[in-house]
Amino acid sequence: MAFIKVPEGVPGIRSLVMFRPETGQYLYELAQILLRGESPISEADRELIAAYVSSRNNCMFCMNSHAAAARCLFGDRKTLVDEVLVDMDHSSVSEKMKALLHIAGKVQILGKEVKEDDIKRARDLGANNREIHDTVLIAATFSMFNRYVDGLGSWTPTDPAAYEEMGKRMAQKGYVLPQAIK
Amino acid sequence: MAFIKVPEGVPGIRSLVMFRPETGQYLYELAQILLRGESPISEADRELIAAYVSSRNNCMFCMNSHAAAARCLFGDRKTLVDEVLVDMDHSSVSEKMKALLHIAGKVQILGKEVKEDDIKRARDLGANNREIHDTVLIAATFSMFNRYVDGLGSWTPTDPAAYEEMGKRMAQKGYVLPQAIK
Repeated sequence: MAFIKVPEGVPGIRSLVMFRPETGQYLYELAQILLRGESPISEADRELIAAYVSSRNNCMFCMNSHAAAARCLFGDRKTLVDEVLVDMDHSSVSEKMKALLHIAGKVQILGKEVKEDDIKRARDLGANNREIHDTVLIAATFSMFNRYVDGLGSWTPTDPAAYEEMGKRMAQKGYVLPQAIK
Repeated sequence: MAFIKVPEGVPGIRSLVMFRPETGQYLYELAQILLRGESPISEADRELIAAYVSSRNNCMFCMNSHAAAARCLFGDRKTLVDEVLVDMDHSSVSEKMKALLHIAGKVQILGKEVKEDDIKRARDLGANNREIHDTVLIAATFSMFNRYVDGLGSWTPTDPAAYEEMGKRMAQKGYVLPQAIK
């Protein structure tokens, strides 16, 4: 049971947004522009960064839901998601994507952990300003979402089918606050 | 120098928002509703939570600017800010505020660090659902801002006068994106 009085049977961040839609609307809008807005990083790769950071933060709700969204978006290449979550360095994502995920992993620890060398490695593999920016902001944003979801003890479903359903919705419809919550 | 090409001479998050206003506008709007919107926690105490979390995340830009804003808002009681930043447990803030700052400190580490006992202690001292919610979300949000600002190596002024000026603006005008950036 969550630490504060939220609607029963509503999982994760959705229950918190229903408790306080005034802040929730900006959280959803930020997720939408960041994960579905224009970016040189594909939507699938952005969801992968979100799932990777959530996994490192041990946030099961965000990890499972964004991994499910990434699997939908990768389609035939969906096994990449579990490869990265199990062992990113030996996964079959591109070297550039590994360098970006490495930066995301540093951001997950702390902003100051990102060093010139981490950025240089990504640039040498072809990453541009926007890719570096978006990687850092996605990693920072999920360091927030993970703490919000777990810090208030919100409900984390354990049924994999629930996440598959969520992933489909997130991949198809993005992060749009249900009208009923606004 | 920042890790990406941002306007020179613009400090901290402002330079990053100028690089990417499409995400920046939601970051500012979130800060505004969270730190200046309606809440049972005073604006001064909310800025104190932000400065406390930023201090624990070793983010000098956010710590100095939000500490300066908190000092403005506390007025005659401004020494509270440095008391909390030096040794929160022995500061002269109320016992309820100590319990909320303790929760914020747990969120700074990781969401899962917040335990039933931390919440019970705050409730026993009079904290309600909204106070607990707002504390967790402010701590989570600054865990994001701190990582964004430092993870991209944005410029951190060292002159205390610069922060005093920023703090005044933040206390008086809040977090409104300059028209020129939008």
